[in-house]
Amino acid sequence: MAQNIYDNPDFFSGYSQLPRQVHGLDGAPEWPAIRAMLPALAGKRVVDLGCGFGWASRWMREQGAASVLGLDLSEKMIARAKADTSDAAIEYRIADLETLELPAAAFDLAYSALTFHYLRDFDRLVRMIHAALAPRSDFVFTIEHPIYMAAAHPHWIADEDGRKTWPVNGYSVEGERRTDWFAKGVLKYHRTMATTLNALIGAGFQIRRIEEFAPTPEQIEQIPALAEEMERPMMLLVAAQKLNAE
Amino acid sequence: MAQNIYDNPDFFSGYSQLPRQVHGLDGAPEWPAIRAMLPALAGKRVVDLGCGFGWASRWMREQGAASVLGLDLSEKMIARAKADTSDAAIEYRIADLETLELPAAAFDLAYSALTFHYLRDFDRLVRMIHAALAPRSDFVFTIEHPIYMAAAHPHWIADEDGRKTWPVNGYSVEGERRTDWFAKGVLKYHRTMATTLNALIGAGFQIRRIEEFAPTPEQIEQIPALAEEMERPMMLLVAAQKLNAE
Repeated sequence: MAQNIYDNPDFFSGYSQLPRQVHGLDGAPEWPAIRAMLPALAGKRVVDLGCGFGWASRWMREQGAASVLGLDLSEKMIARAKADTSDAAIEYRIADLETLELPAAAFDLAYSALTFHYLRDFDRLVRMIHAALAPRSDFVFTIEHPIYMAAAHPHWIADEDGRKTWPVNGYSVEGERRTDWFAKGVLKYHRTMATTLNALIGAGFQIRRIEEFAPTPEQIEQIPALAEEMERPMMLLVAAQKLNAE
Repeated sequence: MAQNIYDNPDFFSGYSQLPRQVHGLDGAPEWPAIRAMLPALAGKRVVDLGCGFGWASRWMREQGAASVLGLDLSEKMIARAKADTSDAAIEYRIADLETLELPAAAFDLAYSALTFHYLRDFDRLVRMIHAALAPRSDFVFTIEHPIYMAAAHPHWIADEDGRKTWPVNGYSVEGERRTDWFAKGVLKYHRTMATTLNALIGAGFQIRRIEEFAPTPEQIEQIPALAEEMERPMMLLVAAQKLNAE
């Protein structure tokens, strides 16, 4: 079973106060970039993997999705997601993505935000998602960027000019990374960009677009602290599509 | 016109002594990984963009390619490439990839090694290559990895444990980078991974596989200095295929 850091009280309490948890999708600077990668939602059957409080699940229904299945490992998250909607077409369920099985060809869009870097077995998950999607369906997800995750000590340093600089080491050494983020020893799994994209291609997805989130000039004007995101990408956004059988 | 650093006498003299120029393909540790990404060559019409001394052009003919057109900006390179073969099915030509035009659907494989990061306009080049390939043809190339190229001062530093670490800054600020490599102020163009892959997809290529070159344990045993390549990727290898019209 995946480490369930979200039900740790210290973690949950800190995490719940993040702008993106308080303000929802508009509190996440990468949200406009994600939105631009999503297909039209009208009539779609959506699965939201790692749905948290359900912000995206609810938004997708507002955009006309026929149904949304929101899945999360955290009981606290799912409890609050359930409390925040009375929409019968949104179903929330506790689920461990390391072992999750979904029915075949039951969804038209698989979506996931900042979840997969907590999972050990990305390959299994991607093949399971591929089978759960109808032909030509979309798969859109975000993860922490491997540049952000790779180093033994991932934090800002200064270069010889004093410029904010991000250290990279161990990039090609995949596997566990431990960080202190609201709690000690949060467990993540570093994978290279190549491993992530090749897993998708190997499972039968076509890569449609990738983004390495960087703020727009307008976003930096509104929130100057975002400027440092130009120095190194913190998030990788991927849009893929299930190929037809050849 | 692209900067022609290769015809600078100091550069040419240093460059010509690199193991990969003295020993050819076997002097390049990434060569086995490239080879694994290449399609079967028998009967293929190949264009080798930035062919240098022609090591790969000659190898492809040995593997059964029907013809190879080797292109390079450097007169010195093309002169030596021509001197090194008497094979009438290999043609070498001086060409500037910034402005090159090729006939439509005239090739079955476009190949390029460590050349495109010298070019300002990758998008134009990729569209031109797409048009020059027959349907279902392959496009395999290597470039310096954006992690390697991004920083203002791209050189090893040490982290707090003394571990070899690579600095990243300015990752999302694309454009010119100047480095001193056998000559002062060698001009390269940094592009993000997303820009490179999205340019291919936008032109009508399907991404087949990417590799971020890392040495194998056997390679590290033979050449211990390669171990540092595990810390950060120096090269990006891409295999793409021209899609059928939809």
